[in-house]
Amino acid sequence: MSNGDIFLGEVIGTGILILFGAGVCAAVTLKHSKAKASGWIVIAFGWGFAVLAGAYTAAPLSGGHLNPAVTLGIAIDTGKWDKVWVYVLGQMVGAMLGAVLAYLVYLAQFNANVHTDKEPDGPTPTLGIFSTIPEIRNPVANLLTEIIATMGLVLPILAFGLTKGLGESGTQALVVALLVVGIGLSLGGPTGYAINPARDLGPRIVHTFLPIPNKGTSDWGYAYVPVVGPLIGGALSGVVYNLAF
Amino acid sequence: MSNGDIFLGEVIGTGILILFGAGVCAAVTLKHSKAKASGWIVIAFGWGFAVLAGAYTAAPLSGGHLNPAVTLGIAIDTGKWDKVWVYVLGQMVGAMLGAVLAYLVYLAQFNANVHTDKEPDGPTPTLGIFSTIPEIRNPVANLLTEIIATMGLVLPILAFGLTKGLGESGTQALVVALLVVGIGLSLGGPTGYAINPARDLGPRIVHTFLPIPNKGTSDWGYAYVPVVGPLIGGALSGVVYNLAF
Amino acid sequence: MSNGDIFLGEVIGTGILILFGAGVCAAVTLKHSKAKASGWIVIAFGWGFAVLAGAYTAAPLSGGHLNPAVTLGIAIDTGKWDKVWVYVLGQMVGAMLGAVLAYLVYLAQFNANVHTDKEPDGPTPTLGIFSTIPEIRNPVANLLTEIIATMGLVLPILAFGLTKGLGESGTQALVVALLVVGIGLSLGGPTGYAINPARDLGPRIVHTFLPIPNKGTSDWGYAYVPVVGPLIGGALSGVVYNLAF
Amino acid sequence: MSNGDIFLGEVIGTGILILFGAGVCAAVTLKHSKAKASGWIVIAFGWGFAVLAGAYTAAPLSGGHLNPAVTLGIAIDTGKWDKVWVYVLGQMVGAMLGAVLAYLVYLAQFNANVHTDKEPDGPTPTLGIFSTIPEIRNPVANLLTEIIATMGLVLPILAFGLTKGLGESGTQALVVALLVVGIGLSLGGPTGYAINPARDLGPRIVHTFLPIPNKGTSDWGYAYVPVVGPLIGGALSGVVYNLAF
Repeated sequence: MSNGDIFLGEVIGTGILILFGAGVCAAVTLKHSKAKASGWIVIAFGWGFAVLAGAYTAAPLSGGHLNPAVTLGIAIDTGKWDKVWVYVLGQMVGAMLGAVLAYLVYLAQFNANVHTDKEPDGPTPTLGIFSTIPEIRNPVANLLTEIIATMGLVLPILAFGLTKGLGESGTQALVVALLVVGIGLSLGGPTGYAINPARDLGPRIVHTFLPIPNKGTSDWGYAYVPVVGPLIGGALSGVVYNLAF
Repeated sequence: MSNGDIFLGEVIGTGILILFGAGVCAAVTLKHSKAKASGWIVIAFGWGFAVLAGAYTAAPLSGGHLNPAVTLGIAIDTGKWDKVWVYVLGQMVGAMLGAVLAYLVYLAQFNANVHTDKEPDGPTPTLGIFSTIPEIRNPVANLLTEIIATMGLVLPILAFGLTKGLGESGTQALVVALLVVGIGLSLGGPTGYAINPARDLGPRIVHTFLPIPNKGTSDWGYAYVPVVGPLIGGALSGVVYNLAF
Repeated sequence: MSNGDIFLGEVIGTGILILFGAGVCAAVTLKHSKAKASGWIVIAFGWGFAVLAGAYTAAPLSGGHLNPAVTLGIAIDTGKWDKVWVYVLGQMVGAMLGAVLAYLVYLAQFNANVHTDKEPDGPTPTLGIFSTIPEIRNPVANLLTEIIATMGLVLPILAFGLTKGLGESGTQALVVALLVVGIGLSLGGPTGYAINPARDLGPRIVHTFLPIPNKGTSDWGYAYVPVVGPLIGGALSGVVYNLAF
Repeated sequence: MSNGDIFLGEVIGTGILILFGAGVCAAVTLKHSKAKASGWIVIAFGWGFAVLAGAYTAAPLSGGHLNPAVTLGIAIDTGKWDKVWVYVLGQMVGAMLGAVLAYLVYLAQFNANVHTDKEPDGPTPTLGIFSTIPEIRNPVANLLTEIIATMGLVLPILAFGLTKGLGESGTQALVVALLVVGIGLSLGGPTGYAINPARDLGPRIVHTFLPIPNKGTSDWGYAYVPVVGPLIGGALSGVVYNLAF
């Protein structure tokens, strides 16, 4: 795969991932959305099928990592580091592109995020649509959650490559998508499962600059946790995989 | 594939799509339905498995496009335009057929959509069972939503054809079905995700003529948005796919 | 396949189908169940995965029809009628066996279906756990619902056999299972989607004889609808399939 | 497969199973979790995708039994008993490891399980996150539930190996995962579906020793039911499978 194909694949794939992922958070959060308050099952399946859409689309170009923690785990396992920067660059650009697209899909809803006579419920904070927010703010516990949850993503992904038949049967991205549904259902409760530095940092940058009415804080004080935690989790997965398999 | 097979496949497949799709909207909307008010997760999976049922059934006859926006995207990508009219004609006929079938499945429920002593809750507007209605009426924002959501459908579908193994493993329509679940969960909040001109226009025509008690408006003023938006989205997907892949 | 294998396969497969299917209805209906009142999405996925469990288990023995309407549709399509009685006999025995097993799984819950000081909410009617009950009792409309819903099952199943790859890829029963989820979500609202004469009649017989406290009526006046409707739907599917494909 | 690979595979696979499974119970149960009170559908899919994650990861090393009842059923069917102890040892170690990991993911939530001015709702019993608790305590009925529910797991798993294509298509663990979702939805209402001695006993041991505030009883009086019931169900499945298939 050429650097150009890798970059393009990761931009398009991660763009679709965040378009769908930020989209489902907007769908459940914003007023005047048909999916308003439709619950955690919608969030978890929404993010899982976001991975499905992005990964199958990116697969022919870049293999569809869509996540620096996955790229890091694969690099540690294989020892090949020369393409890592292309993947991560594409993932960051894609994540920002996807966040802008999700904003455009919900443009009328974001613009109605005001307090008027017609909108008496008042505005809602919007950061949770773009990036993760912990339920209990505790850096050590939050990092631990993100590290273990990311290992629950990357270690299986590395192992899936070995599973007889899975790698060639066209179902690999489907299984990864359902794995991501499972991570959301099971491990997303404390921090909202970033498990992907680009997924959190890219949209947070976009949130900082977008002209959303009453958008609230972009919470940069927490921004390092969903970057550092997933990178540690991805690296540990590569190490454990190399030792165990 | 002969023109007759294509027409028949698209009629049957799109008929099943709308039977199931309008069906799930009726199930959630109408009084005296066991699925009354069962939420957005039911709507999204209902439409996704509607695609599954229609696409696998139509596949041996026509390949199962079921959507003029998909047909348009494929035509732009491949440069083959001579069968487009057969596909679209079949899709429109099928969509109208499916809407009539869904009406027949919920016949007793539609006939109970009245205000009597036994039905004190009064009648419900019924257009939302057949066609899409935006939460916030804003043609520019609504078009933008439909364009981007349709790209989220057609671009992955075009890319799935290239993905190693997916095209021949029998799981392609399954992946597309789950993709449609994801679009509903993530991008359906503002407009109800037509993402398919036939899916919206065909049932709207049927709604105009069916003798449903208290059916309410067929809202023809909005009807161009879920036709034009998806066609632009499908066309853009064909262009982007040709450039990127 | 020998008659013995077919009979055994259909007994085991339909037994599992009804164990899971009546099970999920008990889970949602009965007091002292962890899934009490968990909604239509649980019912629909429960019946779908009931098909998955039964069909994959029966597949090596009988092909896993599990439904006289499916057997009828295949017989009309292929013109082979000599094994039909073996299939239907196995399906009826299996459906009764499965209903008894579901009763045993929820034995303590059924025995708590009483009015005492400890159970002040009083008993619940139990027929809905075993067989279908229409929301609006109207034989013509109910038959129409069951006929169309069964065609939504059997026509796709017949077509799936032709779809490239699906027949041999091991995903056929998975696709049928998700199709059944979709039928439940979309077409189950009016009558509870019997779409299978054995699924309704077998458990109704068992309900008539089981010593359940306060079990309520077995409603034999309605029993012909979920037998006749699905048989008509299955037969029509065989005819349409033969003409169209 | 060497004893070392089997042990390692079962430790990692069962560890992931319980990390996700106990995780989803924590997600739905504990205060300050984004998935708090999100319902039975979340529990059932959470455990199902826990199996998906664990089984695909363990598959290349040990085949991914993750459950002594499955190992027992296979041993009875095949007559090969020499590796059983390695499997079961790995499953018990993995189950305990997974329970500790789930505790660490929800560390801040467990530490907030107190009664203070900031937490006025008071503490919640925590055993249900780790092990199963019956809704109605009745050893005979509870054993019957666990025996039949485990047969609903192990008999299909044994049969799946024979189904044409399923064993080699890479979808086997996916089908088993969805089967487990179905068992949860349909048969989990009375006892919480242990259907796996290691899944219940391992986390119960961990619960006994972990320093969780206000953790409540570990209920050792019930602990034999979710061990004995699943073992009987697994053994009966092996016997039935040998006779019928």
